Amino acid sequence: MKGVIASIAPEAEVLDLSHEVSRQNVVEGALLLADSARFFPSGSIFVCVVDPGVGSKRRCLAMESGGRIFLGPDNGLLHPVAGAGLVRVVELTNAAYRLPDVSPTFHGRDIFAPAAAHLWNGVPLSDLGPAAVSTAPLEIPAPRVSGRRMDALVLFADRFGNLVTNASLGILGAAQWTVEIKGKRIGRVRRTYSDVPEGRMLALIGSSGRLEISVRGGSALERLHLRRPCGFPVRLFSR
Amino acid sequence: MKGVIASIAPEAEVLDLSHEVSRQNVVEGALLLADSARFFPSGSIFVCVVDPGVGSKRRCLAMESGGRIFLGPDNGLLHPVAGAGLVRVVELTNAAYRLPDVSPTFHGRDIFAPAAAHLWNGVPLSDLGPAAVSTAPLEIPAPRVSGRRMDALVLFADRFGNLVTNASLGILGAAQWTVEIKGKRIGRVRRTYSDVPEGRMLALIGSSGRLEISVRGGSALERLHLRRPCGFPVRLFSR
Amino acid sequence: MKGVIASIAPEAEVLDLSHEVSRQNVVEGALLLADSARFFPSGSIFVCVVDPGVGSKRRCLAMESGGRIFLGPDNGLLHPVAGAGLVRVVELTNAAYRLPDVSPTFHGRDIFAPAAAHLWNGVPLSDLGPAAVSTAPLEIPAPRVSGRRMDALVLFADRFGNLVTNASLGILGAAQWTVEIKGKRIGRVRRTYSDVPEGRMLALIGSSGRLEISVRGGSALERLHLRRPCGFPVRLFSR
Repeated sequence: MKGVIASIAPEAEVLDLSHEVSRQNVVEGALLLADSARFFPSGSIFVCVVDPGVGSKRRCLAMESGGRIFLGPDNGLLHPVAGAGLVRVVELTNAAYRLPDVSPTFHGRDIFAPAAAHLWNGVPLSDLGPAAVSTAPLEIPAPRVSGRRMDALVLFADRFGNLVTNASLGILGAAQWTVEIKGKRIGRVRRTYSDVPEGRMLALIGSSGRLEISVRGGSALERLHLRRPCGFPVRLFSR
Repeated sequence: MKGVIASIAPEAEVLDLSHEVSRQNVVEGALLLADSARFFPSGSIFVCVVDPGVGSKRRCLAMESGGRIFLGPDNGLLHPVAGAGLVRVVELTNAAYRLPDVSPTFHGRDIFAPAAAHLWNGVPLSDLGPAAVSTAPLEIPAPRVSGRRMDALVLFADRFGNLVTNASLGILGAAQWTVEIKGKRIGRVRRTYSDVPEGRMLALIGSSGRLEISVRGGSALERLHLRRPCGFPVRLFSR
Repeated sequence: MKGVIASIAPEAEVLDLSHEVSRQNVVEGALLLADSARFFPSGSIFVCVVDPGVGSKRRCLAMESGGRIFLGPDNGLLHPVAGAGLVRVVELTNAAYRLPDVSPTFHGRDIFAPAAAHLWNGVPLSDLGPAAVSTAPLEIPAPRVSGRRMDALVLFADRFGNLVTNASLGILGAAQWTVEIKGKRIGRVRRTYSDVPEGRMLALIGSSGRLEISVRGGSALERLHLRRPCGFPVRLFSR
């Protein structure tokens, strides 16, 4: 992908945002993108490839939103960045801005990278293909609240072994919550890791604004022996 | 290595092609390089270090081939890119283009990176050392074909857990093959992941033109519990 | 972090030194930095984040040393580069050079990256905050020597599975040492991997000048089944 970009737009500067999204975890990729995009300069072009449906009928999109451009498969990955600032969406069908041979397993290289490079060269978004109206939703289950109890779940584990959940600040609100995972009470929501002793498990609001389960100086993923963290239940109780 | 390049050729742009080749897997590195090089601009300089023999008598080479320059150890890593377009090969012996102190365990930093930076600065290839004639072959075992059966094997697992085999498109030809691995029939060769249901194992031709064993939405490496994928047998039967 | 730098200093070139330091292993990060910094051009700005104490009272520092600038938490990470060439240290307290909202869990993005970008833009180090006098020491245990025996230990495993120890060239001196780990004699200190047959365990002085335990063509970490290499004992005997 970097070679393709360098061939079409030799002056373009390429930054690696992340190559560490868990295999085919569209939710993790979408949230990473949504959390990171606003820190990049206006005009940035994002090539986003978490693409389990590559080669199927799923569409390849490019969208302008919030002063930035995002390219990726229509599988929910771009959904969080297609918010209030959405200007337009196109489907990447114009063969002039793809590689001559498009493989059925690597659209990152053959469709998304060349489209991004041509955009960087000044090709207008509307030249890449016809306007597209809607995009696939991102399937993030909402926590279930019943009385003083909330049933949340783990969305993914980050590279430090922190377990990122679907309980966002907006959902938690101003209430005081106590957190439980795998039958283990880990106390109230803390501000930062050093609010507990070394080696202790804790819950806090991560830099993305979501409840995370962590171990100070360690890995919650390893501590809890979770092989498949995605979907693991987390319970919260308010006072 | 990046610091060395930035010190000698401050304007050179460095792209990371991959840091994920399995430890000391020369075949994986060589195939990655062969598959990727043509997507990079003419004139690109490739620093290629998969180098289990570092510090031994194996030579350090630079070669011009297909309008690009490749530097690396003479262990087969550069063999696939030294094809029809090969112009010249030199051995990197000129001390003027190495770091002053060459460690016996990190020639990437001390020999290959400085040579690449000097090439970028305009030093001619022939100044880096004497012409060298031949290079080590790359030992990729060919599949054995007997009648309607082909015995192939896994060369490496990629970062998604796909098992890349030694059965290339050229060997498979036009025949219809049925694939078996670890005693499990996984059907005919498919076009892309979504040709089978979620979670199903399949065989397809990967973006590099070789037969791969995959799991849709998963990892064949994990599904088959392969600790050492390299060399694992794969059987094919034609109708 | 890259987005923040690109937003403040669009022309700054960012190189990734490493994203592979073991989780929260300050010693590993500090030694990597100390080993690598001298290979980078004079004037380079290093953003160093191995930061288990993020959000606590630990200070955020920037220091000029040896013609380069280093930013990082005051937890020992910068200690080895604050050697003979140290010119000045400041604490990063000036809110004008932080992001408007500083999260308690990601100072890399909110404090260190913006400070580095402003330095690149020409802001003087002294504008970032008040002079700071001392920094936290780096807690690297020294090997214990008694007679002809030395008790060393593993500091970390690198990405190849080599076990890097606290026995540096300066401590080993000119004596001939025989090395033992997990009850296994692995012979004298070698010069490079190919001094032993394929698959054999060996001890050598790595590119950083420290004794390392390796397997030729393999991984010492895997061979010895070490789940937590940090602190594992290594014994040396001199003749």
